[in-house]
Amino acid sequence: MDDRIATLRGLMREAGIDSLLITDPKHVYYLTGFASDPHERFLGLFIPDGEEAFMLLPALDADKARSVSSIERIETHTDTDNPYIRLKHCINGNVGNLGLEKEHLSVARFEQLSAELNATSYIDAGNILNSMRSRKSPEEVERMRESILKIEEVLRRGLSSVKIGITEIELVAELEYQMKKLGAEKPAFDTMVLSGPNTALPHGVPGTRKLAAGELVMFDLGLFYNGYASDITRTFAIGEVDEEAKRIYNTVLAANEAAIRATRPGVTFASIDKAARDVITEAGYGSRFIHRLGHGLGMDTHEYPSVHGGNENVLEEGVLFTVEPGIYVPGHCGVRIEDDVIVTADGVDVLSSFPKELTVIG
Amino acid sequence: MDDRIATLRGLMREAGIDSLLITDPKHVYYLTGFASDPHERFLGLFIPDGEEAFMLLPALDADKARSVSSIERIETHTDTDNPYIRLKHCINGNVGNLGLEKEHLSVARFEQLSAELNATSYIDAGNILNSMRSRKSPEEVERMRESILKIEEVLRRGLSSVKIGITEIELVAELEYQMKKLGAEKPAFDTMVLSGPNTALPHGVPGTRKLAAGELVMFDLGLFYNGYASDITRTFAIGEVDEEAKRIYNTVLAANEAAIRATRPGVTFASIDKAARDVITEAGYGSRFIHRLGHGLGMDTHEYPSVHGGNENVLEEGVLFTVEPGIYVPGHCGVRIEDDVIVTADGVDVLSSFPKELTVIG
Repeated sequence: MDDRIATLRGLMREAGIDSLLITDPKHVYYLTGFASDPHERFLGLFIPDGEEAFMLLPALDADKARSVSSIERIETHTDTDNPYIRLKHCINGNVGNLGLEKEHLSVARFEQLSAELNATSYIDAGNILNSMRSRKSPEEVERMRESILKIEEVLRRGLSSVKIGITEIELVAELEYQMKKLGAEKPAFDTMVLSGPNTALPHGVPGTRKLAAGELVMFDLGLFYNGYASDITRTFAIGEVDEEAKRIYNTVLAANEAAIRATRPGVTFASIDKAARDVITEAGYGSRFIHRLGHGLGMDTHEYPSVHGGNENVLEEGVLFTVEPGIYVPGHCGVRIEDDVIVTADGVDVLSSFPKELTVIG
Repeated sequence: MDDRIATLRGLMREAGIDSLLITDPKHVYYLTGFASDPHERFLGLFIPDGEEAFMLLPALDADKARSVSSIERIETHTDTDNPYIRLKHCINGNVGNLGLEKEHLSVARFEQLSAELNATSYIDAGNILNSMRSRKSPEEVERMRESILKIEEVLRRGLSSVKIGITEIELVAELEYQMKKLGAEKPAFDTMVLSGPNTALPHGVPGTRKLAAGELVMFDLGLFYNGYASDITRTFAIGEVDEEAKRIYNTVLAANEAAIRATRPGVTFASIDKAARDVITEAGYGSRFIHRLGHGLGMDTHEYPSVHGGNENVLEEGVLFTVEPGIYVPGHCGVRIEDDVIVTADGVDVLSSFPKELTVIG
C-alpha cells in the first residue's frame, strides 16, 4: 500500500498536482487497505506534496480504519459536521493545484469543497488512478486468477443443470447459488442466461423462456472474490443447431482469437478491436457486431481501459481487460465469446480457460 | 409520463430554469418510460422551455427507446462520438439557465458539457426530481402494491423451505429464485437471511450457518417489479425461543405499530422516528436501536426522504417510506420488523400485510 502511495506521489509531481484528494472508496481501499461504503457520508484521503497523508472519515468508521489502514493519521467527522470545513482545518497551509477524481466527484460535492479549499486549480487525477489500477500487480493478478477460476467452476456446475425445458431464470438462480457457495462476495453484474432468439439481445434480461433443442444458449457471468471481478461469456448449442448458427459461432470464435493474437505491448486498443471486427466484417456480419471489443476489469467490472475503435492508447504490460466480440442477428440468434486477458512483456496471457469450441449441452 | 414532464416544466419555471438536462437513468425512466443502464455511455433527456423534449442516447439502445418511450424525438451517438458535441448540435438556440442533477453529474462530465453548451448558469434540479418522486402517483402506488404483494409471496414460499439444518445462503438462493419466478427484475438489495446470534448484526452477511431450534431467523428482502422496489423485514422463531427474545420481539412490534399510528400529514419525520424510539427506550433497549426508523422507497430502494430524528420536514400525502425499528443485542439476538407505508389524506395506509405477530416456523 505504501508503495502505491509512493508511486502516486511521483505521478502527482509529473502532473503538476501539489495536493491530491481521493474520495472514491475503491481508490481509498486500493491505496490504504481500508475498505468502506460511506454511502452519502464524506470519505477522503488527502495527500499533500512532501507531507504526511491523512484520511478524513465518518467517526463510526474510525476504529476499523485505524486497525486496517496503512495511514497513521485518521481524522473524523460526525453527521452534524460540515466535512469540507473539517477538511480545511486538517490541512496545513495551501492546497495549491489540487488533484481530484473528476469522474467520481459529483458537481454538488465539488461546489461545497471548492467553496472551502480555494485551490489554485483543480486537476483531474482520475487518469493517474485509472492507469495505476489498469496495470495489475502480481498480487492483483493472483486475485483475478482466483476470481476467474471461481466463475469457471460456477459455469461448469451450472451447465450440469442444463436440460430441455429448464428456464433461463432457473439457471440464473442455480449459478448465483453456486457463486455464494464458492465464497463469492456477490455477482459482478446481473447474471445473464439467454436462449434461442433472446441470444440476439445484447442487453436481454433472463426470463421464464424454456430452453429447447436446436438453439443456442448464452451465459454471461462474473463474480467478486477478494474484491476482484471476473467476467466471462460462453455460448453453447442445445442439440444440433442450424448452419447459420454454426457459421456465426465460428466467426465470433475466430474474431476472439484474432483479437487475442493481436494483443501485445505497443499496439493500440483500436487495433485489437479492429482485428476482431475485420474477421466479422469479412464474414458479412460487420453491422451485427454492435458493441466495443471489451473493457478493463479488476476492482470494478467495467474499468479503464475501454477497448474500442477510437482508443488510440497503447497496450502496456500488466493491463487486464475483456475480449468479447459478438454477432447478434435479431429474430434468429446471437453469439458472444468473452475471455479475460492480461498483456505480458511480449504478448498476452489468457486468464480464462473455459473451452471455446462449439459444445453441445443439455 | 407526459403529465410528469408537464409538471416538471412548471417546477422548472418556478426555479428559474430555462432548459433541463436529465442524465440519471432512473429519472429518464421516470419521465419517459424508457429504462436503460448506459454504464459509462452518455444518456440525456433534454427539456427546453416551451420546445419539444428529446433524448440523446447510445445508438444500440435506440430501437428500444423508440418503441417504449413517450418521447418522439430520439437522437443517438456512437462510442466514437463526443456526445456533448452531438448534444450541442441537437439543441436549437441557447440553453440559458441550465438545470442539472448536481448530485448525480460528475465534475468530469460537467466540464465536458459546459465546454460545449455555455449556459448562462447551472442550477441544481436534483431536489425538484427528488420531491416529485417522493409523492407517488396512483399508478406508482399500484406498482408499489404489486411489488410488495410479490415480495410477500416470495417470503411465503421461502418459509415453506425453512427447516432445521438449512443454511442462510440456501434460503437466500431459494428466495431469489422465487423472485425471478414471480417476474421480478432483480432483488432490490442483497437478500438477507440471518439466524441465531447473527440476527444481532444489522449489516450481517448470510453465510453457511445452519438454522437451529430455539433461535430467531430474520428475513430482510425486496424486489424490483415494473421498476419499483419493495422492502420488508420479518423475524420468526424456530421452535420455542427464550423469554428475552419474546420481550424484544414484542417491543419492536409495539414500536413499529406506534410509528405507524403516528404517521399522518403535517407531522415531522422526526416525530414518527421518536414515536418508535420512545417505545424501545421505555423497554430499556434505547441504546440497541442503532439506526434510523426508515427511508423513502420507490424507483430506488433508498430514496428521499430519510426518516430520522433530525428530519424536521413534514409528511405530505402520497409520500411512501419504510418503518423498520429494530433491537440488536450482540451475542444473543436481534429483531427488526419493517413495513412499507404511504401517507394518505388523513393518516396512513400500510401497504405491506404480512402478519406481524411472533410466528413459529420450521
